[in-house]
Amino acid sequence: MPVNIFPLLPGHLLPVEGITLGIAEAGIKKPNRKDLLVMLLDEGTQVAGVFTQNRFCAAPVIVAKQHLMQSSTRALVVNTGNANAGTGETGIQHAVATCAELARLVGCTAQQVLPFSTGVIMEPLPVDRIVAGLPAAVANCKTDNWFGAAQAIMTTDIVPKAASRQVQIDGKTVTITGIAKGSGMIRPNMATMLGYVATDAVISHDSLQALVRSAADRSFNRITVDGDTSTNDAFIVLATGKAGHREITRQDSAEYGLLQAAVTTVAADLAKMIVRDGEGATKFITVQVDAGKDADECVKVAYAIAHSPLVKTAFFASDPNLGRILAAIGYAGIDDLDVSGIQLYLDDVLVAEQGGRALNYCEEDGQRVMNQSEITVHVVLNRGSASTTVWTCDFSYDYVKINASYRS
Amino acid sequence: MPVNIFPLLPGHLLPVEGITLGIAEAGIKKPNRKDLLVMLLDEGTQVAGVFTQNRFCAAPVIVAKQHLMQSSTRALVVNTGNANAGTGETGIQHAVATCAELARLVGCTAQQVLPFSTGVIMEPLPVDRIVAGLPAAVANCKTDNWFGAAQAIMTTDIVPKAASRQVQIDGKTVTITGIAKGSGMIRPNMATMLGYVATDAVISHDSLQALVRSAADRSFNRITVDGDTSTNDAFIVLATGKAGHREITRQDSAEYGLLQAAVTTVAADLAKMIVRDGEGATKFITVQVDAGKDADECVKVAYAIAHSPLVKTAFFASDPNLGRILAAIGYAGIDDLDVSGIQLYLDDVLVAEQGGRALNYCEEDGQRVMNQSEITVHVVLNRGSASTTVWTCDFSYDYVKINASYRS
Repeated sequence: MPVNIFPLLPGHLLPVEGITLGIAEAGIKKPNRKDLLVMLLDEGTQVAGVFTQNRFCAAPVIVAKQHLMQSSTRALVVNTGNANAGTGETGIQHAVATCAELARLVGCTAQQVLPFSTGVIMEPLPVDRIVAGLPAAVANCKTDNWFGAAQAIMTTDIVPKAASRQVQIDGKTVTITGIAKGSGMIRPNMATMLGYVATDAVISHDSLQALVRSAADRSFNRITVDGDTSTNDAFIVLATGKAGHREITRQDSAEYGLLQAAVTTVAADLAKMIVRDGEGATKFITVQVDAGKDADECVKVAYAIAHSPLVKTAFFASDPNLGRILAAIGYAGIDDLDVSGIQLYLDDVLVAEQGGRALNYCEEDGQRVMNQSEITVHVVLNRGSASTTVWTCDFSYDYVKINASYRS
Repeated sequence: MPVNIFPLLPGHLLPVEGITLGIAEAGIKKPNRKDLLVMLLDEGTQVAGVFTQNRFCAAPVIVAKQHLMQSSTRALVVNTGNANAGTGETGIQHAVATCAELARLVGCTAQQVLPFSTGVIMEPLPVDRIVAGLPAAVANCKTDNWFGAAQAIMTTDIVPKAASRQVQIDGKTVTITGIAKGSGMIRPNMATMLGYVATDAVISHDSLQALVRSAADRSFNRITVDGDTSTNDAFIVLATGKAGHREITRQDSAEYGLLQAAVTTVAADLAKMIVRDGEGATKFITVQVDAGKDADECVKVAYAIAHSPLVKTAFFASDPNLGRILAAIGYAGIDDLDVSGIQLYLDDVLVAEQGGRALNYCEEDGQRVMNQSEITVHVVLNRGSASTTVWTCDFSYDYVKINASYRS
């Protein structure tokens, strides 16, 4: 069961001027489900993205990166049910063919289309079914279709993931709306499998590219469900430039700061929804590491805790078996770590210090926090001033069940 | 259920001259179980060990390392039920007190005793119960007690783990007998939680220390159950020098090579037993990575596969969802990996090459191998001449069950 995600109402999502979305049933893996999404962008929309660092990256990732470099972007096409990953040269051809057909339908070049796929790895993409489904998706395009789009990109997700926000820039109202999907194979390294955030802000391409990286590093790049980095991760920010304020061209401007904060908030909301809907999740865990020497060591400690199957099963059981967290900190890879200097808190409860259990810690306090559905693990390293936060979920029977039966 | 470990018969284990073992019920965590082991060593026994790299290493690990440096060793004491880890300064005092009491009973100094603990982390060691149990353990000491010792060090282990072997050196028969425990929190980094191998070989201390490192790197340091490195890992080799051959003093000698091979075989047998008895294991998986540029990248690829929850749940389900293995290779951290050059085999079945599914691969062949209880994943990187082998198990409902209820 997803942890504390409340049903999203279509009306909560604000359209972004300059972008329409259309969905269709292409029958890619299963019949009678929306599995194809087309997004059409007005001319002049700036597009920037970050993609998976997995060396076995999927064909659509390779093609989308090429197309982004070659041309301005006018359309995105997303299919679920098949990742078109581990499909070699044929996979590339299938991704290009999908782009070419959408380009023909909407009147642009194939290079102006970015392809995305999600689903099972190492099976041939049913490109004929996608091509056959494209006209219906194009015909369905409208501005207020974000909720349908969020549904169309789901795979093992239980709930659709979307968020909207507005911010005032230069006296104008700027809208930001985003959707994402993902619940397993989640340990993004650049971005997660399919996050799209659109805004009508006016921003140069260089500034937008800087913004997408920084937003990813504070959202999708700080979540993990199972530590498996997907072959298909992509996080894309679209800026249509319709909001009417002066163009943002400098990363040291106040306007850039406002937009970056708003986009990062939407991206972090989406990223946390992915964790809340993590496969089999029953708890939402925030791992906050403070007072590290540098960000790198904070990240190491946070992920050691967030990836430990022993820590995650203890959360599932609501068992304050907190020595497992100490063990994870100990093997995080900080060679000169002095464990006697560390404090470990569970929410507000001081659990360990001076290399052992805190004097005033009692099991009842630990149990009280462990019983909650949302828990913060707070580690104070006392080595410097760097911090990081990572979000994850627990590890349950249902994770095994879902992943032992994903293809059947 | 442990995977293909056959019941060990007490008679299979050969005594090692110069070593006696005694066990007792100390009631450390639960009543009516053997939870205390004492090993007494004849004078002149060489002792070498490798210990966990976890920075939160347990109090007995700190004390054992100090004692090993300070003095010759005459006794070992092992308790289960409590790891004496994450226990701060008090934990150190408890470990030293245990050594002092055993020293008093057998007539040596506290520095000549090495302490070991395994069990729950961050709870105070019930040192009084251990001290009270020591006389019975000492009284029980005898040479043919290896089977009882293997039983006494179990925690969540289902089967006791032990192995014996003999080798001819310099015209003399040399005996090697070892015991080990462990089934969860298994990703040794130096050695696993409690592996002891004893031999009557005659070998200098320097040569024995080199041998223990090399044996660990080919056995305990190549297994993983859940990727969690324990706070208490220790692998100890004892050499009593009773076999009567000339002392081995050079690592380039034929005699050293013979002994090293035999000790490594016993250690690898024990390490594989730990994986076969991995918590919830239903399959035994060998991950063999060949033709890497160096050992480091082979190890990275092997562990990326062996730690992936998605790969491990697919094995549990006997589902040839083999794209998950490609994804794990892709995120293993080899920056310049050309995925089109890799071959992936499942036993003898070529699954993937040239970046995608192999032309002749068919699902039936993959399914046939996945149905087996023992499977080899074979990755050929085609980048060089380095190789490594890692052993692991699948990831089942029972892993979650065992670890969600370990303390109750």
